[in-house]
Amino acid sequence: MNNSQLTNDQQQQLLEILGSKGLLLETADRWTYGYDNSRRHCTPLAVALPTTVAQVVAVVALCNETDLSLVVRGRGTGTAGAAVPVAGGLVLSTERLDRIIKVDPDNRVLVVQPGATNQAVQQAAAEHGFFWPPDPTSAAVCTIGGNLACNAAGPRAVKYGTPRENTLGLRGVTGDGRPLRTGVYTTKGVVGYDLTRLLLGSEGTLGVITEATLKLTPLPEARRTLRALYRGTRAAAEAVARIMAQPITPCALEFMDEGAIGMIRNYSEVTIPEEVGALLMIEVDGPAECIEHAATAVAEAARNSDCLELTEARNAQEIRALWQMRKALSPALRNVAPKKINEDVVVPVSRMPDLIDGLNDLGRRYGITIVNFGHAGNGNIHVNLLVDPDDPNQMGAAAECLSDIFNMVLALDGTLSGEHGIGLDKRDYVVRETDPVALDLMHRIKAQFDPTGILNPGKKLPPL
Amino acid sequence: MNNSQLTNDQQQQLLEILGSKGLLLETADRWTYGYDNSRRHCTPLAVALPTTVAQVVAVVALCNETDLSLVVRGRGTGTAGAAVPVAGGLVLSTERLDRIIKVDPDNRVLVVQPGATNQAVQQAAAEHGFFWPPDPTSAAVCTIGGNLACNAAGPRAVKYGTPRENTLGLRGVTGDGRPLRTGVYTTKGVVGYDLTRLLLGSEGTLGVITEATLKLTPLPEARRTLRALYRGTRAAAEAVARIMAQPITPCALEFMDEGAIGMIRNYSEVTIPEEVGALLMIEVDGPAECIEHAATAVAEAARNSDCLELTEARNAQEIRALWQMRKALSPALRNVAPKKINEDVVVPVSRMPDLIDGLNDLGRRYGITIVNFGHAGNGNIHVNLLVDPDDPNQMGAAAECLSDIFNMVLALDGTLSGEHGIGLDKRDYVVRETDPVALDLMHRIKAQFDPTGILNPGKKLPPL
Repeated sequence: MNNSQLTNDQQQQLLEILGSKGLLLETADRWTYGYDNSRRHCTPLAVALPTTVAQVVAVVALCNETDLSLVVRGRGTGTAGAAVPVAGGLVLSTERLDRIIKVDPDNRVLVVQPGATNQAVQQAAAEHGFFWPPDPTSAAVCTIGGNLACNAAGPRAVKYGTPRENTLGLRGVTGDGRPLRTGVYTTKGVVGYDLTRLLLGSEGTLGVITEATLKLTPLPEARRTLRALYRGTRAAAEAVARIMAQPITPCALEFMDEGAIGMIRNYSEVTIPEEVGALLMIEVDGPAECIEHAATAVAEAARNSDCLELTEARNAQEIRALWQMRKALSPALRNVAPKKINEDVVVPVSRMPDLIDGLNDLGRRYGITIVNFGHAGNGNIHVNLLVDPDDPNQMGAAAECLSDIFNMVLALDGTLSGEHGIGLDKRDYVVRETDPVALDLMHRIKAQFDPTGILNPGKKLPPL
Repeated sequence: MNNSQLTNDQQQQLLEILGSKGLLLETADRWTYGYDNSRRHCTPLAVALPTTVAQVVAVVALCNETDLSLVVRGRGTGTAGAAVPVAGGLVLSTERLDRIIKVDPDNRVLVVQPGATNQAVQQAAAEHGFFWPPDPTSAAVCTIGGNLACNAAGPRAVKYGTPRENTLGLRGVTGDGRPLRTGVYTTKGVVGYDLTRLLLGSEGTLGVITEATLKLTPLPEARRTLRALYRGTRAAAEAVARIMAQPITPCALEFMDEGAIGMIRNYSEVTIPEEVGALLMIEVDGPAECIEHAATAVAEAARNSDCLELTEARNAQEIRALWQMRKALSPALRNVAPKKINEDVVVPVSRMPDLIDGLNDLGRRYGITIVNFGHAGNGNIHVNLLVDPDDPNQMGAAAECLSDIFNMVLALDGTLSGEHGIGLDKRDYVVRETDPVALDLMHRIKAQFDPTGILNPGKKLPPL
C-alpha cells in the first residue's frame, strides 16, 4: 500500500468524483484535517468533502481499488486518535453531509446524515418535543457520525443509554465500496443479524456511515439538579450505589474527586469548603407533578453521615450555575496540564471506591497527580494523569502507571473504555481485556467488511 | 454431512462426554425434543443434556469434527421453528444448565445459565427489588437462552427494551468448539466490536450461549392498568400514536382488533359491547406518588371521540382481571384454529391503521379470517390467519395472502418479525426485507463463527 503520496491517476479520479471544491490538496488545508483531541497529528494526502452518498461510494471504491487508506472524520473531537490518519492516505470529512433528512415525531424517529452535529439533531428533535439521549460534552460541535462510530454517550446514558440503545438502523458503505443498509425503522426487529450495533462503536474500521435512523425520546417536562458534597470518596461512592439501588434512576450522576475539586477551586470562582473530598452532581427529570418526589428520593439516597452539604437547584439559572462548575473542569485541567493523559475506564458501580483508592495509591507510587471525575452512575470514570510531556522521566512513569491502572480496572471487573473508544491510544491494551477467541472473530469480521484493509487501518483492534 | 444416523464412534464419544444420563438415545425420549411451538417436528438422532460448560464445549467440538449438525433448544416455546432439528443431527437441551450464578443488586446485574426460565430470573431478581425487562407471554416456562437467541421481548419492551437493551455480556461456544466471552460487566463498554448483540437474536446459528450477564431494572413501586374500548381500529391506532407522543411511556400498550375481541367474547366470560371494534390495554408503572398522574396522562391521550369506554384497574385483583382477557386470547385462537398461522410483523406506530385496514382487505380477498393483536406501542402486531390445514385450497390461499401481507408490511416501512424470529417459517422471505450486501455479510459472519456450518443449519438466513 502506497500511502505516502497520491498518484496522478488517483488525484485525477478523486477530482472527477468530488470536483475541485470537494477535494483539498493544499498542505495548509490538509493539515487541519490531521488531528483530533488526542493531540496526535498526521497530515493526510488529501481531504475528500463529499456532498452526496454516491460520492462517498465512489471514493471508497477508488480507495479499495487503488489500495489507498481512508479515515472518516466528523469534527475531530474524539480523544483516542481514531480520526488521525496515521497510515497516511485520504481523510473523508462528513461535514457537508449534514442534512437532517426527516423528523417523524409520530414514530419517535429522526433520520440524519453523519455530518450533522449532535446539537443540530437535538434542536430539530426539540421542535417536536423530543431529544436524542446521547450527549457528549462536545455536543455543540461533535457530529452524529462520530457519536455513532465511537458509541459516545455522556451523562444521560445512566438513564437513557448510549447510541446502541438509541439507534434503529444505518446506511453506509463497506470497505469494498458496497452500499449497505442495516436495521429497521421500528423499535423492534429481529430479521437477520444485528449489523447496526456491530457498526456502532467500530470507529470507522468496518464501514462509512452515510445515514442513521435515530430513536427519539420525549423531552421530560421538568428537571431538578442537586449537588452533594462529601468528606471523602468512599462516602460519595456509597451514595452512588444507594442512589442506583432505588427505583428513581437519575438522568445524570456525575462524580468529582478531591483533585478535580481542587482544580475548580483554583481555576474558577466556585467556593467549596476545604474539608470536601468528593462531590456528586445528581439530576432527575420527569413529569412536573412527580419531580419533587424524584428529587426527594435521590436526595434521601444521597445523604449519609459523611455528606457535608446537599444543595438543590430549582430553576434554570440555579441549574446552570451548578453545571458550570462541572463544565469548567475539563478546561481547568487543560490549563494545568495541556497534555494530560485522559482515560475513561469503567468499573461496576460498587467497585468505584476501590478504583479511586487504587488510583490514589498509584499516583503516590509514581509521583503523578491523578484527577478523577466522570459518570458515576455508569461507573465510567475519567482518569486524568497530569504529566509534563517534556519530562521523559515522568512520561516513562506515566506509561507504567497507566499500565497498572488498566490492570486494576480489569481486576475490578471493569473495562478499559466506556465511551472514548480505542483509536490508537488504547489499542495495545485491548488484548488484556478481550477474550482471544472474540478478538480473532473481530479480526475476521473486519476482513469481511473491509477485505483490503483500507478503512482506518491500525485502529480499534491490536494488529494480528 | 451424514445426519441420518449416528456412527458408533459418535455415539461412544457422546457417551464419554455426557455419561449415559446425559444422552437420550431412545426414540420415545428423542421424539419430544423434536418440536417447538411452530408445530413442526423432526426427531433428532440424539439429545445431549449437558450439566457443565466443559461438556457443551466437548459436544460442539465433536459435532464440528464429525460434521454432525447441532440444534440448541431451551423449552421449545419458539414459534418459528428455530429449535426443530430439520437437518437431523443432535439436539442440545440447556435444561440442566439452569443455575442463577450470581445476583449482584449493587451493580444491577444478574449472571445466569441459559436453561434458567425467565420466571426463575424474575423471582431471583425480585428478591432484591429488581426485574429483567424482557417478558414473553411464555415467561413461566421459556428459558433465558431462548429469549436471548430470539431477542424475544413482550409487552414491557415499549418502555424497557428487548434483550439487546438489557444484556451486558455473554459466554458461549463457537461452531468450531471454541469457548468465547463477549461484552462487559458494566453498563458502558466500547472495547472491540459488539459481538454480544451479534449473538443476541442469532437463533443458535452463530454460537451456543452458556452464560449471560443481564442488566436489571429496579421494580416500579406502583402500577396502573387501563382498558380502552374503541369503535374501530383507526380510533385505537390514533390513541396509540397520541399516547406515544406524550412523555409518559407506558410499560405495556397492547392492542386487539375486532376479530380478536370476537374470539374472547365467544371463548371466555368477558363481556364487551357489540359496537366495540378495537381495544387497548394500557399499563403505566413508576413511583407510587406519581402513578396517579401517569395514569391520568395516558388516559387523556387515550380518549378520543370514538373511545366508547375507559376502565381503570386500581388494585392487583382488578389488574389481573383485565389481563386475563388478554391472556385468554392465544388459547382461544388455538381452539378455533389449532394450526393458525401466527406472524409478528412490525410497522411504525403511525402506520398501524393502514396495516389493519390492509389486513382486513386481504382477509376478504382471500376468504381468510385474520385476527390481529399485539404490542401496539412498538407497532408489533401478531397477525393470525385462521386456516384449516386439511383444506389444500385454503392453505394455498393462505400462502399467497401471507406473501401479500409481508409485501404490505415492507411497503409501510415495517419489518417481518419483531420477536418471534425467522427460524424456518420466514426464512424464504428475508430477501424481501434485507439489503443484499447486508445479507452477504451475514452469511460471511456465519462462516467465521461456524466454519463447518453445523449450528442450526438452514435457519435464520435464506440459503446462499
